Amino acid sequence: MNEIKIFCPATIANVSCGFDVLGVALDAVGDEMTVRKTPEKGIRITKLEGQDLPTATLKNVAGVAGLALLEKSDYDGGFEMEIYKKIKAGSGIGSSAASSAGAVWAMNELLGKPFTTQELVKFAMEGERLASGVAHADNVAPALFGGFTLVRSCAPLDIIPIPSPRELYATIIHPQIEVKTSDSRKILKTNITLKEGIQQWGNVGGLVAGLFTDDYELIGRSLVDHIVEPIRSILIPAFDKVKSKAVASGALGCGISGSGPSIFAFSKGEEIAEKVAQAMREVYQNIGIDYEIHVSKINPLGIKILE
Amino acid sequence: MNEIKIFCPATIANVSCGFDVLGVALDAVGDEMTVRKTPEKGIRITKLEGQDLPTATLKNVAGVAGLALLEKSDYDGGFEMEIYKKIKAGSGIGSSAASSAGAVWAMNELLGKPFTTQELVKFAMEGERLASGVAHADNVAPALFGGFTLVRSCAPLDIIPIPSPRELYATIIHPQIEVKTSDSRKILKTNITLKEGIQQWGNVGGLVAGLFTDDYELIGRSLVDHIVEPIRSILIPAFDKVKSKAVASGALGCGISGSGPSIFAFSKGEEIAEKVAQAMREVYQNIGIDYEIHVSKINPLGIKILE
Repeated sequence: MNEIKIFCPATIANVSCGFDVLGVALDAVGDEMTVRKTPEKGIRITKLEGQDLPTATLKNVAGVAGLALLEKSDYDGGFEMEIYKKIKAGSGIGSSAASSAGAVWAMNELLGKPFTTQELVKFAMEGERLASGVAHADNVAPALFGGFTLVRSCAPLDIIPIPSPRELYATIIHPQIEVKTSDSRKILKTNITLKEGIQQWGNVGGLVAGLFTDDYELIGRSLVDHIVEPIRSILIPAFDKVKSKAVASGALGCGISGSGPSIFAFSKGEEIAEKVAQAMREVYQNIGIDYEIHVSKINPLGIKILE
Repeated sequence: MNEIKIFCPATIANVSCGFDVLGVALDAVGDEMTVRKTPEKGIRITKLEGQDLPTATLKNVAGVAGLALLEKSDYDGGFEMEIYKKIKAGSGIGSSAASSAGAVWAMNELLGKPFTTQELVKFAMEGERLASGVAHADNVAPALFGGFTLVRSCAPLDIIPIPSPRELYATIIHPQIEVKTSDSRKILKTNITLKEGIQQWGNVGGLVAGLFTDDYELIGRSLVDHIVEPIRSILIPAFDKVKSKAVASGALGCGISGSGPSIFAFSKGEEIAEKVAQAMREVYQNIGIDYEIHVSKINPLGIKILE
């Protein structure tokens, strides 16, 4: 096999209480990539459609992640990549992660899978470092593993896949304003109270338990973030209103996707997730803010081959 | 049924990363109580053996917890209680919780179970308030529910039972010095760094996932506490040495039980748990500190009726 065409899912990182540790892969929104082997060494981005992003290898997250893999590989050739972006950069649903993770996943397939998924996460994290200045794994891990993932530890890297109930749907609304991950990190406090910490790890434990036991109510009760959401939500137009309308429409819980500005809500079943979408949509329509909206099942596989 | 004799298990609270939220019930060590209905109203502690503790109803945790239940009950009579303490007060393995939880569990049985287990936890927490000044649930919850419990939230109270692998054993060593929970709380910092918080909730998520999936290695990797253990361990003689010897003898992980001074270790299987006990014992023998030691399976039921 010399060429592969793949779907690279959007992902929700943090998931309310799970700041910097939890993430989940989506089904209904993601990029496409075509990756092919070349006798020529190195990585070349030969096409990049859908977003205005650099194609120079060292300035593109897929290029940088790919080079990290090549460095550990004994493969003698290189790769060409065509990237068809459907996920907007700066949307908060893992645009850079989709490209970083997609690049290394496709390369690994074409090389006969010499690397483990956890190793691929490490390579993809180099793309995240380029995008945001921090080599975080909370988007690339769910993109590569699928479903929910817990990054228990970054050093050493320890990623735990977490199952999720079948009827869990995500609704994601993306107000068309840009919030850079790097800016969104800057406004975080470096200290929290022990009390806030206890609430947060109680909720992380509750969310993980709820995902294991298909307990939708527990998942909902655990989707609470007293630490990051109160600060970051200030950068998101009408966040409180979108959240309250989503919950009033039946969502289990609602929070900031990644560093925003996208807002996610989880619901039990597609019908409620669509109602939640309608409620979120109305908030932005009423105040005249452009948006994109997605309703998606959880994607248990992550990146997958197309055709 | 007018009288009941019960076993009230010792419990390990906090369980390393799960400060103030996680706890687990033990099998090999616990108090016994006999509780009987009386036509006379109120609660009387008619016997208290094994520890030098007050028997006046309002000064005894069982009395106070019992009164909290009576206040919500339409029962017209009262109860007499005999308490046979096997768990030393101030040991850090839930001595007060065993009495508080035992009292309300037995009363509920004798009244025909009008209250849910979660309601019993609330009553028992009043005993904890008397003992330590804080109405915490991390010992009474596992005593009443059995197994591991997660106190996701205290207000409103939300307790999540967590399963655990069959071969999980605890070794607990209790150096014979007294550390009061109230003193041990005073030395805690009120602020932590966000980075420490992230590590902690990553580990709580990992521990819960490990318990659900019988992944002993993951349980071990998650038994880490960067926040409380470095501070509280100062009050425990030779903590670092006991811990390193326990882990070197095959323990999955090791930490402070509750607020100390007891130290717990988890192991896969009884044989390793006994080896760990031997290693811990040697540390205290070499430095001439008296100790008690227990090796116990996890107790999946919590409080139980004795013939």
